[in-house]
Amino acid sequence: MVKKILVINGGSSSFKYQVLEKETERRLCQGLVEKIGAEGSMLTHKRFLENGETEKFEYPGNYATHADGMAKVAEVLMTPELGGVINDKAEIVVIGHRVLMGGPDYQEALVTEEVKQVIRDYIPLGPLHNPANLTGIEAMEKLFPGVPNVAVFDTGFHATMPDYAYTYAIPRDLAAKHHIRRYGFHGTSHRFVSKAGAALLGKKPEEVNIIVCHLGNGSSVSAVRAGKCVDTSMGLTPLQGLVMGTRCGDIDAAVVPFLMKTEGFTPDEMDTLMNKKSGFLALCGHSDSRDIEAGRNAGDAACELTFKMQCYSVKKYIGAYMAALGHVDLIAFAGGIGENAVSVRAGILEGLEEFGIELDPELNKVRRGDHHFINKASSRVKIAVIPTDEELEISRISVRIVEEGK
Amino acid sequence: MVKKILVINGGSSSFKYQVLEKETERRLCQGLVEKIGAEGSMLTHKRFLENGETEKFEYPGNYATHADGMAKVAEVLMTPELGGVINDKAEIVVIGHRVLMGGPDYQEALVTEEVKQVIRDYIPLGPLHNPANLTGIEAMEKLFPGVPNVAVFDTGFHATMPDYAYTYAIPRDLAAKHHIRRYGFHGTSHRFVSKAGAALLGKKPEEVNIIVCHLGNGSSVSAVRAGKCVDTSMGLTPLQGLVMGTRCGDIDAAVVPFLMKTEGFTPDEMDTLMNKKSGFLALCGHSDSRDIEAGRNAGDAACELTFKMQCYSVKKYIGAYMAALGHVDLIAFAGGIGENAVSVRAGILEGLEEFGIELDPELNKVRRGDHHFINKASSRVKIAVIPTDEELEISRISVRIVEEGK
Repeated sequence: MVKKILVINGGSSSFKYQVLEKETERRLCQGLVEKIGAEGSMLTHKRFLENGETEKFEYPGNYATHADGMAKVAEVLMTPELGGVINDKAEIVVIGHRVLMGGPDYQEALVTEEVKQVIRDYIPLGPLHNPANLTGIEAMEKLFPGVPNVAVFDTGFHATMPDYAYTYAIPRDLAAKHHIRRYGFHGTSHRFVSKAGAALLGKKPEEVNIIVCHLGNGSSVSAVRAGKCVDTSMGLTPLQGLVMGTRCGDIDAAVVPFLMKTEGFTPDEMDTLMNKKSGFLALCGHSDSRDIEAGRNAGDAACELTFKMQCYSVKKYIGAYMAALGHVDLIAFAGGIGENAVSVRAGILEGLEEFGIELDPELNKVRRGDHHFINKASSRVKIAVIPTDEELEISRISVRIVEEGK
Repeated sequence: MVKKILVINGGSSSFKYQVLEKETERRLCQGLVEKIGAEGSMLTHKRFLENGETEKFEYPGNYATHADGMAKVAEVLMTPELGGVINDKAEIVVIGHRVLMGGPDYQEALVTEEVKQVIRDYIPLGPLHNPANLTGIEAMEKLFPGVPNVAVFDTGFHATMPDYAYTYAIPRDLAAKHHIRRYGFHGTSHRFVSKAGAALLGKKPEEVNIIVCHLGNGSSVSAVRAGKCVDTSMGLTPLQGLVMGTRCGDIDAAVVPFLMKTEGFTPDEMDTLMNKKSGFLALCGHSDSRDIEAGRNAGDAACELTFKMQCYSVKKYIGAYMAALGHVDLIAFAGGIGENAVSVRAGILEGLEEFGIELDPELNKVRRGDHHFINKASSRVKIAVIPTDEELEISRISVRIVEEGK
C-alpha cells in the first residue's frame, strides 16, 4: 500500500490542499476551495498523472464553512472518477495542517486535545485564521478517523528569535497578560526557502546566513543565521513590516489613536482599515503587483510611487538584517511576487552593489521553475529565486512528527 | 550695543535656553529649567565669562508651567547679579524657538498669529511638545515685547525626503485630509551634526553621505545624502522608530486596536501608554541610560534586555539606511546617549566590521567635548562623536529669518 500525506493550508475564507506520496514526495493532486461562506464558492481540483499530464476538475458548491469544503474534498480524494488519488483511508499516514498561531511554545505538534486548546487560546491573536484552522482539523478528525493530524504553526520557524528581537517596548505586564510580542508568520515558507537556499549554495543550513524575502499577497522578510531565524518583519500579527497588497506594514503606531480620535473609528474599523484597505490598494487602487506594473508602464504616477514604496520597504529590511546578521551569504526571493516580479527584485537590489550584492540583470529576467541564482559571478552575496513549497515542508514535518515523535 | 540672540529649546517638561552674541556666535550663558510641574523643579544657569571662566547659579523654585520658568529666566538674564548677560532688552535681535511640529508647509518661520495657529493645529500630532512650545513663545512675547520670535520646526530638515520615504501606505484621502505622513523630528540636530560631520571629513555636505544617530531622551536616526535628509526614523509623531526612554518606537500597529479592545483603553490612554509608559521605562523600570548601565553592571536581566533592545534598534536602522544610501562615508553619534554612552555605541556597532564599520574601542572610551573620530584607521566608514548644538543651529536660522526674511 502506497503511503500518502494529506496537507491542508488553510486561510480565513479559503484553503488549499495537496496529497503527496510519502516515499517519492511526488505530488498526486492539489486543490483549492475558495470563497467559503460567500457566493460563488468553488472547489478546484487537479490530479497529476504519472505521465506528466494534469486533469482538472471543478466543483462549484455551497461551501458555507471550512468543514463543508473539507467534506467535499474528502469525497473527491476517495472517488477515482471525481479526481481521487486515495483508494483506502489507511493509505494516509498523516494529515498536516498549517495553523497560524501556536504561541511561543509550539513550533509543530501532533494534534491532541491540549494542542487544540492552544489553538483556541490564541484565537484572540489570530481571530480570522485560528478558528478556521481548528475547524479544518476537527473536520479531518471526523472524515479520516484514526489518522494522526499534525499542526505546523506559521509562527514555528521564528520561535528561535532572541528576546531582544521579539520583545516590544511596551508595559511588560500587559505584554505578558496578552502574549504580546513579535511572532512572525510564513514560517514554513521561510524554513523551506532557507534550507533550500543552503542546499543551493552547497552548504548545510548551519554553515550559512540567509535573508529570505517571501513576497506575495502577504509579505515578510526574515534573517536566518546558521539555519535559525533571528528576526522577521511581521510581528504580533501579519500587519507589521513590509507594505503589502492591502496591509499598511510599518507605520507610526500613533497614527492609530490619531485617526480614531479625528475620524471616530472603532478599534475594529481601524483594524480593517490597516489590514484590508491599505497597502498597494490604498496607494494606487491595485493590490496585485502585475496591475501595478501595468500601471507603471502606462505612466500612472500612483503606481510608480507604489512600486517605489514596495521596493524601498524590502530594501530597508534587507539592510536591517544585513546589520543584524553581520555577514550574509544569500538573499533568496520567494512567493508570488518574489518568484515572478523581475522589476521588483531589480528595484529592491538596486544600489546595493557596494555591499557585495550584485544582481545579474539578464539572469534576473529568465523565468525558471527551479531554484537558481540570479547574481553576477562577482557578487560576494549570492542572490537566488527559490519557488517556495509550503506544502512539501508541512508534509516533511508531519511525517517526522508521527515517525520520530518530535 | 552688542546684538544678542536668545534661543529657547523646549521639551515637554523642561526647556533649555542660551544667549549668544550675534557677531561672534560666542555663548554668553546657558541654562536649563527642569521638572516643570513636578516636585524639585529647578533653574540651573551658567554664565560664561570672557576669560573662559564659568559662573554657576541655581534657582530652585515652584515652576508649575513653562511660563513660570521663562519669567524666572527673563529675570535672571536681565539682572547682572543673578547671572544676567543682557543690559537692555533692545540688545535681543531675535528669540529663536525650537518648535516640534509645523506641518508640511513650514520649515522655519517668523512667529505671527497664523504661525501660532499652525502650532495649535498640530497639537494632536505633537501632544507632548507643541503646547509647551506655544506657551514658551507667548511667554516671550510678553516678557520681551517687540522682539521678533522665530519658530524653527523640528521637522524642517526632513522636508527633503522623497515621497516613497515619507508616504504611509494608508488610504490616501485620509492621509491628505489630516496631513498624515512621515515628518521626522530633531531636525536642527540632524542638520547641525550632518554639516559638522562633513566638515570633520574635510568635505562639503554635498560630497558625502552620513547616517546621524541622535540618541537622547528622544532618539532618531537619519540618512543624509549629499547634505539632504532622505529618510529618518521618527514619523508622523516622535513615537515611531527607535526604542526610547518612555516611547515604544516601532511596534505592530495592530497592537493598538488589540489592546484597546481587550483592555478597554481610549485612544488617549493608548497614546499615553505608548509615549509615556513604554520604552526603557516599561522594560526595566528606568528611562535613563545611566541607570540602565548601572543595572546591567549589577546583573539585572531586565536592564540587560533593555540595553540589547536599545542597541539592536539603532543597529537595524543603521543597516536600513546603509541600504537606502548605497554608500556611507560617516556614522555620527550625537545627543546625551550618543555622545556619552560608550557601551551603547559599542553595542550598536558590534558585528558591522564586514561592512567597513570598525569602531576603535580605545578611542570610543575617551571622553572629549569636541567633534572627533572613534573609528579604527582601517575603517572604510568613518565613525564620529559630534556633540550636537541645536541652539547654535537655531540661532543661525533665526538671524537669517529676521535679516533676510527667508
